[in-house]
Amino acid sequence: MLLSEEIKNIIDFTKGNGLVTAIAQDAQSGEILMVANMNPDSLARTLETGEAVYWSRSRGKLWHKGEESGNVQRVKELYIDCDGDAVLIKVEQVGGAACHTGKRSCFFRKLEDGIVQDVGQQVFDPAEVYRK
Amino acid sequence: MLLSEEIKNIIDFTKGNGLVTAIAQDAQSGEILMVANMNPDSLARTLETGEAVYWSRSRGKLWHKGEESGNVQRVKELYIDCDGDAVLIKVEQVGGAACHTGKRSCFFRKLEDGIVQDVGQQVFDPAEVYRK
Repeated sequence: MLLSEEIKNIIDFTKGNGLVTAIAQDAQSGEILMVANMNPDSLARTLETGEAVYWSRSRGKLWHKGEESGNVQRVKELYIDCDGDAVLIKVEQVGGAACHTGKRSCFFRKLEDGIVQDVGQQVFDPAEVYRK
Repeated sequence: MLLSEEIKNIIDFTKGNGLVTAIAQDAQSGEILMVANMNPDSLARTLETGEAVYWSRSRGKLWHKGEESGNVQRVKELYIDCDGDAVLIKVEQVGGAACHTGKRSCFFRKLEDGIVQDVGQQVFDPAEVYRK
């Protein structure tokens, strides 16, 4: 699947060296689950499949979120920001956790008065989910 | 102000070539207002002043959000993600709008069935706010 001309005209992949920032927000609770990147192919696959597909910078390949854990993200809504270099997807998080640590959200470390605290909600045990 | 050793050990500016992604979320409604970038200095100033200070990639300088419009963002909470390359700030958006277009959120373009629609809430007239 290719991106339509309309989408290609709106989304600006150049500023991020071929990538846009992609924020995943829980469609129900509004909680921010994670932030990652998309290249044109991952955005096209996200639109095609209805599930979040990111571009993994560290692995240098497409990353169908949940491909290993089963915790896919079903995309309910997709928004593009004013200058076209970021997308926001509102998702249903299958399994209830987005983070590889087994926490609900990747943003589980809160900084308060100079001290970092873990305030995350543990949903699954990563040693169980990612074992082969 | 400098970042503490604890924060420097947790936040990874290397992956983003000196920058981390910064997401601003309305502390009350949970709405995503915008996404931008921070370098170490902008994060330090954010912590010091309690107002969001980003790094503007396009202008190559610190950007105290709202410095021109008056629509500053008062930081209520700050979170760091699992791999330390993104921060989430929950803010009180003074003036009720984060976007330079005068919309409440920068994510005002919704993509649905291949069609992009403006679903944003217009809060102010940018021609009024940014005139000199």
